Amino acid sequence: MGEVTDDRIDAEEPADLPRSMVDRTLLILGTFQNKQRRQTLSEISRATGLPIATSYRIVQRLAEWGALEKDANGRYYIGLRLWEVAALAPQPSQLQRVARSYMQDLFEATGHAVHLAIRDGLDLVSVERFHAGRRPAPRPIVGGRYPMHASAIGHVLLAYAPYKVREEVLSQPFERFTSRTLTRRADVESVIERVRHVGYAICDRHVDELHCSVAVPVYGQSGAVIAALSVAFTDREVNPLAQVDLVMVTARRISLLMKSGGKMRGVPGAL
Amino acid sequence: MGEVTDDRIDAEEPADLPRSMVDRTLLILGTFQNKQRRQTLSEISRATGLPIATSYRIVQRLAEWGALEKDANGRYYIGLRLWEVAALAPQPSQLQRVARSYMQDLFEATGHAVHLAIRDGLDLVSVERFHAGRRPAPRPIVGGRYPMHASAIGHVLLAYAPYKVREEVLSQPFERFTSRTLTRRADVESVIERVRHVGYAICDRHVDELHCSVAVPVYGQSGAVIAALSVAFTDREVNPLAQVDLVMVTARRISLLMKSGGKMRGVPGAL
Repeated sequence: MGEVTDDRIDAEEPADLPRSMVDRTLLILGTFQNKQRRQTLSEISRATGLPIATSYRIVQRLAEWGALEKDANGRYYIGLRLWEVAALAPQPSQLQRVARSYMQDLFEATGHAVHLAIRDGLDLVSVERFHAGRRPAPRPIVGGRYPMHASAIGHVLLAYAPYKVREEVLSQPFERFTSRTLTRRADVESVIERVRHVGYAICDRHVDELHCSVAVPVYGQSGAVIAALSVAFTDREVNPLAQVDLVMVTARRISLLMKSGGKMRGVPGAL
Repeated sequence: MGEVTDDRIDAEEPADLPRSMVDRTLLILGTFQNKQRRQTLSEISRATGLPIATSYRIVQRLAEWGALEKDANGRYYIGLRLWEVAALAPQPSQLQRVARSYMQDLFEATGHAVHLAIRDGLDLVSVERFHAGRRPAPRPIVGGRYPMHASAIGHVLLAYAPYKVREEVLSQPFERFTSRTLTRRADVESVIERVRHVGYAICDRHVDELHCSVAVPVYGQSGAVIAALSVAFTDREVNPLAQVDLVMVTARRISLLMKSGGKMRGVPGAL
């Protein structure tokens, strides 16, 4: 199996660009991010390093298929057809479907922001969240990717990650968000060991100067941890320890439902 | 701007296959559907018509990037990374975020299935739904695509679609699902004219032999209809007309929130 090549690769292209058109297509899709939801052709070209003519050819085809759409200002954004196809991704769609009504119940019962995330590689990916519109930033966005060392939900995911993943995360530098963010390997290590012992994580103002959060694991069919659920609050009067049981009960319900393949109760949706 | 070609196109390939690798990549992604969520390489090759070697090369690159993932049985499914990128699609993500808590309220208040859909081209695309696990099939799935002539939610979307779209839908043959499905152009036309007049649609067993549904429009910032909301029930004792007000109140709340850009009340999530 050789390399797929493109006979129209321009002579002046930098050598480190992928030669495969499939990779170039994915490179373009990957430039769309939370803070770059809409991009002009020149922005896409700049972000990818691909010549504008090459970017144009690929973007045209993506737009024709519906993977991208173009707004009145000539900016491209992720199209409905790609969203339709991606909605078939089994893990987030099943978790969302199963967890949603329980998360909403927890949100309404506590008034706290409720967040569900899974691990992907060395990061956590936000799968679902409920919170009040008045909640101060930063807010995790669904589909957003965040480091694991800085939050309770990340500590839970890290605590139950395979040894190899844990080692890899622990051997990398930790970004500091506040004065309380754990940035030393030994501190992160001892915290996640404690999480494995007690079954929950608490982080008080590790991500920003406002939020305290409490997170617990969610288990899947095989009995392995497949996700983590957290509540976050800014009220200094709230005792984090008093939240643990409530979050655990909700996580246990989601786990039970995930184990039964999502076939219980009046839950939203069905595949 | 010429055609992007692939210098490894096999001699025995059928002539009607796209020559562009971008198109071939999208062709492969497009074979993943609700009833084809997991596919082997041979299934992908068969569904696309692409030679197995070509399919293999593209699938490998898609898997390397994370657009596809492979399960223990060697079947590919849509990967988390594509889901992350696609979660940036502005229309469905904003609608889901804004409508979700109101839909859940309506579901809990009525016990009926609640469904939100938008129009894309000549079809409707399901954006969000809440319903009891016990609800009989068929169930719309999020990201699923359905014809507009056969359901109340479709009639609303069709009634407020641009003239050109309406004409195109009306000039095509209508698939029959039950003995009550409207399949004559004149019937669909008069029904959607009535929808524009009264502001809601009712379909009793047009999609299957069980469900009656009531749908109303949802308006966006510009005052145009951007989506439709419906409830569906199987209980013959329920008077559809008695449901109209409740669905309308919910749709009005969602419309108000969409107009204000989603910045009100304790709604789930924020972009």
